[in-house]
Amino acid sequence: MISPVRWAGDHLVLLDQTLLPREEVERVYLRWEDVAEAIRSLVVRGAPAIGVAAAFGVALAARRSAATTFDGLVADLETAIKGLAATRPTAVNLFWALERMRRTALGHRDLPLEALRARLLAEAQATLDEDVAANHAMGEYGVALVPAGARILTHCNAGALATAGYGTALGVVRAAHARGRLAHVWVDETRPVMQGSRLTAWELAREGIPHRLIADVVAASLMARREVDLIVTGADRIAANGDTANKIGTYSLAVLARHHAVPFYVAAPFSTIDPSLPSGAGIPIEERSADEVRRVGGVQTAPAASPVFNPAFDVTPAALITAIITERGVFRAPYAF
Amino acid sequence: MISPVRWAGDHLVLLDQTLLPREEVERVYLRWEDVAEAIRSLVVRGAPAIGVAAAFGVALAARRSAATTFDGLVADLETAIKGLAATRPTAVNLFWALERMRRTALGHRDLPLEALRARLLAEAQATLDEDVAANHAMGEYGVALVPAGARILTHCNAGALATAGYGTALGVVRAAHARGRLAHVWVDETRPVMQGSRLTAWELAREGIPHRLIADVVAASLMARREVDLIVTGADRIAANGDTANKIGTYSLAVLARHHAVPFYVAAPFSTIDPSLPSGAGIPIEERSADEVRRVGGVQTAPAASPVFNPAFDVTPAALITAIITERGVFRAPYAF
Repeated sequence: MISPVRWAGDHLVLLDQTLLPREEVERVYLRWEDVAEAIRSLVVRGAPAIGVAAAFGVALAARRSAATTFDGLVADLETAIKGLAATRPTAVNLFWALERMRRTALGHRDLPLEALRARLLAEAQATLDEDVAANHAMGEYGVALVPAGARILTHCNAGALATAGYGTALGVVRAAHARGRLAHVWVDETRPVMQGSRLTAWELAREGIPHRLIADVVAASLMARREVDLIVTGADRIAANGDTANKIGTYSLAVLARHHAVPFYVAAPFSTIDPSLPSGAGIPIEERSADEVRRVGGVQTAPAASPVFNPAFDVTPAALITAIITERGVFRAPYAF
Repeated sequence: MISPVRWAGDHLVLLDQTLLPREEVERVYLRWEDVAEAIRSLVVRGAPAIGVAAAFGVALAARRSAATTFDGLVADLETAIKGLAATRPTAVNLFWALERMRRTALGHRDLPLEALRARLLAEAQATLDEDVAANHAMGEYGVALVPAGARILTHCNAGALATAGYGTALGVVRAAHARGRLAHVWVDETRPVMQGSRLTAWELAREGIPHRLIADVVAASLMARREVDLIVTGADRIAANGDTANKIGTYSLAVLARHHAVPFYVAAPFSTIDPSLPSGAGIPIEERSADEVRRVGGVQTAPAASPVFNPAFDVTPAALITAIITERGVFRAPYAF
């Protein structure tokens, strides 16, 4: 089983996703500051996995805090929460997990500090366990939407690597494969960071799930040739009306799917839903470094002085989404989560 | 001036486009077999440039032929024409240029062989000179379609590097820039071979034409934000009904443009029109090596065993094209070239 985030007795272990598919290296984390840097630098990525890693980051902050009073410990936790929250702006699971850890701390003023530290670690572990369970539930709900012999297209990596395990979009793919309903997966390579070719293809190859890798721009041709039966992606934040932020390129796929009458599904846990936002217009979109586009694997592929626009996410309007698959069932417009 | 193909006294010179933007290296060609390999390996690419290079390849075959009779020379030319035609299947300008050289040879049975060799070289030079002139004419016709302050999106490289000079789609861009109508160019990086980031950005940077580089999947978001005023691409083959084969990803852009009501133009010389094909369904689509997708600049970005589907081109139906800009004017549906 692929576990991108796991607790090992007294430290956090992250699988370094920046090195995949060439190397499988696990890294040890003892300080929340290093977890924050791991999130920022994409050692761990994927909205649910970021949330789980951040929860453990808070648990690590509690363990390392020298505070001897509740208020002192909470002050240290708030510093960690603030630092972890500043890593990446778009995925709401990060803020959801941090808020959950904050509530856990504030709700246990009565506990001895050592017991509170243990309680926080247990809460982080619960976010992990619940995420895996949610993904299996999504797989079960999602597989009912998959026709026999399906050719499923996916974008980015919403797999075991993006979650605590099993995956959201790839959870649906895994369930379809287990039931014999999957012909193969079309894997968008997902420029610029290549999560499709580096991570999704790696996950699928490792488990012997049939797949074919494509440059992102090939998807339209495949749809025109009727070689895509459905599309399923993950999500980084879902507004109350169903508008969905996900990896840049998702909106493009949704428009193409509508043009070709291909069903377009989003699979995400409830922690991805942000009820505070009425629509996707309020979702902050992270812009990342120009060199993600100008260089690939250290190789310069563009003039060093050429300006770049590099948004990491886009927003797909609810109207282009056939349904949203969650651990509580399949939702369709008008969305009332 | 950028000249990807030029004749230099007794040999052909090609700018090695596989090394851009890091190195500017010109290579010398004396044999048609080496020109064929240069076309196959993308040292020279772009439909019009391939046609011009192939014409010079035939001229080189004539120069090196030891034949002492007209029929012997024609036999040698036919060998070269066959070899050059086998390099890449989609761009029709290649076959058009080879046929033009064949007709030139067959039409001059009366000439002494040395004069015929000179005549073939002059014909190759004429394809080059006519291409540059056609591109300037396209620029003039195209600029009339460009509003003031235009943000023009383009895909792949249909620039000076793809032609004998000035460019087709980038000819329109250059003309718009010269008239002060251009705000900036959005440059699709154009996976997998990166002609946008490696070549188009290089051309534009070199001439100080404002541009911003994007991953291909960003185009849809820009259109949704009303940041694209028009799209213009080149073409590799245009069927009699206006269906257009061009770099993979062009069809995707055309669908997105329709969804967002953005004008979508194709700019190409008449030599790109294939009147023998009633529709785009008959256009052969080249599939290239899996490693173009699995590796970038020598760096492995996907599992080596993951299967890949790597079509180099797609076909955009005429119905999605606002107009086709040629050196003989601007054509609109129903197309009657």
